[in-house]
Amino acid sequence: MTNESVPLYQTLANELRDAMSDGRLSAGARLPSVREAAHSRGLSINTVLAAYRQLEARGFVEARPQSGYFVRSRLAAPPAPEAGARAVRPRPIEPAVLDRIASVVAAQADPEHVDLSLACPKGGDFYPAARLARLVADTARRHPHLIGDYSLPPGSRRLRREIARHAQALGLSMESDEIVLTNGCMEALQFALRTVTRPGDAVAMESPTYFNLIPLAKRLGLQIIELPTHPERGLSLDALEMLLSEQRIKAVVCMPDVHNPLGTSMPLAAKRRLASLATEYRVPVIEDALYAELQYATPLQPAVKSFDRDDWVILCASYTKTLAPGFRIGWMEAGRFHREVADLKFCSSVAQPAVLCEALGTFLEDGGYTQHLRRLRRLYASQIDRLRGVIDEVFPTGTRATDPTGGFLLWVELPEGCDANRLFDAALAHGISITPGTLFSPSGRYDRHLRLSGCYPFSDRHIHALVTLGQLAAEQCRGR
Amino acid sequence: MTNESVPLYQTLANELRDAMSDGRLSAGARLPSVREAAHSRGLSINTVLAAYRQLEARGFVEARPQSGYFVRSRLAAPPAPEAGARAVRPRPIEPAVLDRIASVVAAQADPEHVDLSLACPKGGDFYPAARLARLVADTARRHPHLIGDYSLPPGSRRLRREIARHAQALGLSMESDEIVLTNGCMEALQFALRTVTRPGDAVAMESPTYFNLIPLAKRLGLQIIELPTHPERGLSLDALEMLLSEQRIKAVVCMPDVHNPLGTSMPLAAKRRLASLATEYRVPVIEDALYAELQYATPLQPAVKSFDRDDWVILCASYTKTLAPGFRIGWMEAGRFHREVADLKFCSSVAQPAVLCEALGTFLEDGGYTQHLRRLRRLYASQIDRLRGVIDEVFPTGTRATDPTGGFLLWVELPEGCDANRLFDAALAHGISITPGTLFSPSGRYDRHLRLSGCYPFSDRHIHALVTLGQLAAEQCRGR
Repeated sequence: MTNESVPLYQTLANELRDAMSDGRLSAGARLPSVREAAHSRGLSINTVLAAYRQLEARGFVEARPQSGYFVRSRLAAPPAPEAGARAVRPRPIEPAVLDRIASVVAAQADPEHVDLSLACPKGGDFYPAARLARLVADTARRHPHLIGDYSLPPGSRRLRREIARHAQALGLSMESDEIVLTNGCMEALQFALRTVTRPGDAVAMESPTYFNLIPLAKRLGLQIIELPTHPERGLSLDALEMLLSEQRIKAVVCMPDVHNPLGTSMPLAAKRRLASLATEYRVPVIEDALYAELQYATPLQPAVKSFDRDDWVILCASYTKTLAPGFRIGWMEAGRFHREVADLKFCSSVAQPAVLCEALGTFLEDGGYTQHLRRLRRLYASQIDRLRGVIDEVFPTGTRATDPTGGFLLWVELPEGCDANRLFDAALAHGISITPGTLFSPSGRYDRHLRLSGCYPFSDRHIHALVTLGQLAAEQCRGR
Repeated sequence: MTNESVPLYQTLANELRDAMSDGRLSAGARLPSVREAAHSRGLSINTVLAAYRQLEARGFVEARPQSGYFVRSRLAAPPAPEAGARAVRPRPIEPAVLDRIASVVAAQADPEHVDLSLACPKGGDFYPAARLARLVADTARRHPHLIGDYSLPPGSRRLRREIARHAQALGLSMESDEIVLTNGCMEALQFALRTVTRPGDAVAMESPTYFNLIPLAKRLGLQIIELPTHPERGLSLDALEMLLSEQRIKAVVCMPDVHNPLGTSMPLAAKRRLASLATEYRVPVIEDALYAELQYATPLQPAVKSFDRDDWVILCASYTKTLAPGFRIGWMEAGRFHREVADLKFCSSVAQPAVLCEALGTFLEDGGYTQHLRRLRRLYASQIDRLRGVIDEVFPTGTRATDPTGGFLLWVELPEGCDANRLFDAALAHGISITPGTLFSPSGRYDRHLRLSGCYPFSDRHIHALVTLGQLAAEQCRGR
């Protein structure tokens, strides 16, 4: 086949693929704009577009709205979890898991470590801290009574109205009176579980799951039944339905959008089915939507709650990851459990600080939030691409990683021979903190997995830490 | 006996007593200063002092440091509670009590009502709101990372150090690392109970007790055993010791200083004995010190925890009533339960907002807090005197009230024939909110009692509301 018989767009596509193979174009790099490429190569816009679209269709690049085309990492996805058999019985929470959580949290808090672990930026300009600070300052000065007076529940009407308004982007239709303000999403999850369970009850959780749910369940005397959770298909609804049909669980806790630690989301059809199961089996679904607004693609995929006909879904969320990490303002819409949750808030911690609620309400009102989210989505998408690219380069062959649909977290599977707990210890000895996969299930599964965060500027220090981590993992593989 | 045989100081004392009897000197009025009285009457300073001291010894006036002598109300104290028999068995929590709490809290939140109910000022200049607002503004502007970064536990070291320093005034010797920051005192109480009890356990509480403990206990599945609590002697330690000897309770919850609703404090010897009982029977004492710094007399009486040799006392406190009602920053020192409490905070609500913690720490550091408390104590002492005086004048004969040792709350016993719940309803129909006594015990006792707040400027509106309340109570008495 001579060059002449190859269409022009294919020649361009092949050239770009070669550049990706030999590293001239690395993961996360932006392709020249269609217009630029057309101009510099003397091609028509349609030709360039055809090349870019082929690369996109084959998974080599991805289009990001208003940003252009970016090279994707060639990291493979982790294999699907085993079949649903492991969902059938609760397993005791391993004390070693709780100890490990404590060690990891302590490592995250140490300012000396290079932090690849914490699920929130430390420093950087990811959040509009200065603007929020000015708003807090203005609110405090103009309304000192918000500081001198008792913060009464249910709290700022402005904030609750704005929460309801912005929640429309997730397909939610709520009234401000249905919203209970909480001390972050964690208090919302705590209240949800305390409202719908009693000690000794079993609840279904995703596997892997957000790790802080494990000590919480333990303290509430709950048993956890793990549901296999696939990065692309979400939690196994077949396994869930089996449990429900046997009436063995009092609630399901899940993170259908931008899962922590997977970084991925449940397909729409699965969300719809989950909402139906809740109604059919009259079981509360506790939907953790903490990262849902950080989905890269817009319009956002709607939440499970948007399909909830009979108010069985308790939606928990917060502005901690999307706007104001330091405010600790979360919220919940508890459906049929609203009254109980509102009463529980009053006798558990009364209210949130009025001055911060009012400042946040003002920010949400003036339109800045939508723009901020747009910027943040692009930023985190490129951060995650960059992170995937670095992992691809510096981790041992056979390493796999999820391909997040939002947020700044990534789930990495290391090759055979690696041990995530030992890797955590080894990394810590190099002043690097990571989150081993064993934290994310009550039984300590995922000992070849890591959750890595990508919410930091890629400084030399961070790149160096990732390189070191890859070397430590490679040493483990070789030594197996 | 002629006038000549009466010492000069006695003549003066008698004159002043006459003036109090016929209303020329009403409750809360300030006597002329010793120097003024000596000058205007041509007496020696010692003679005037002797008269004032006799009046003080007999309970007609009280001396307030740096302020002078003030006429005390002649309201009688409520009779002592019955003997300890009622402490012997847990009684179920009356659903009507929980409903009534919800109604009262809703009434407090209605801005249209004249509020004699809420245990916190609404408006007024009781707290340095403007100064705190400036501090929040400055802290936010200088340290925007406190807003843009995640608020990590254990939170502001400056604040915890300052808490430990100021706690010395209550006889407490603590390290900053032993302090867990909480969302107000309510979250501290919640964590204390969740740490030392399991559902089905019984706990001892004072009777009357802070009402919000009742729904909290209910939600935690706890049984409450009521301990008779005397305004001057505190909770019945004999009744407590009987329970402890039978190993029937898992914790004691009490408010030894400036009790809500009584307004009074436990004697020092009783505090010492309570601490000994904790050690002897190895039972956690949850000491609610929310108002302890608002004791009128200084130096402050030490907390029960100051006598705690073996770390059985869990001290819970907050700045909500003493400095910054809108911050919702509380704290606890959990003794031997520290690690468990710190872990519970992390998996229940993670942390408090860093910017408010840092601003509060700065206020506590610069010395303004001590002066503020000095002013607040004098202010609340005179508010309570004023309130007692008004009650004395406008409530039906036979009304009794406690004589608070601190804070701004008062416990009123109405004459036979009155019913606190009906009075609450009648007052609400007049746009006045009060707190009926029935809220303060799980079994709905105290149906002739009210808790009244004195934390508002005595405007015509408030005086009028008190007069109306007295008339409504008098009508109930007559109609009995």
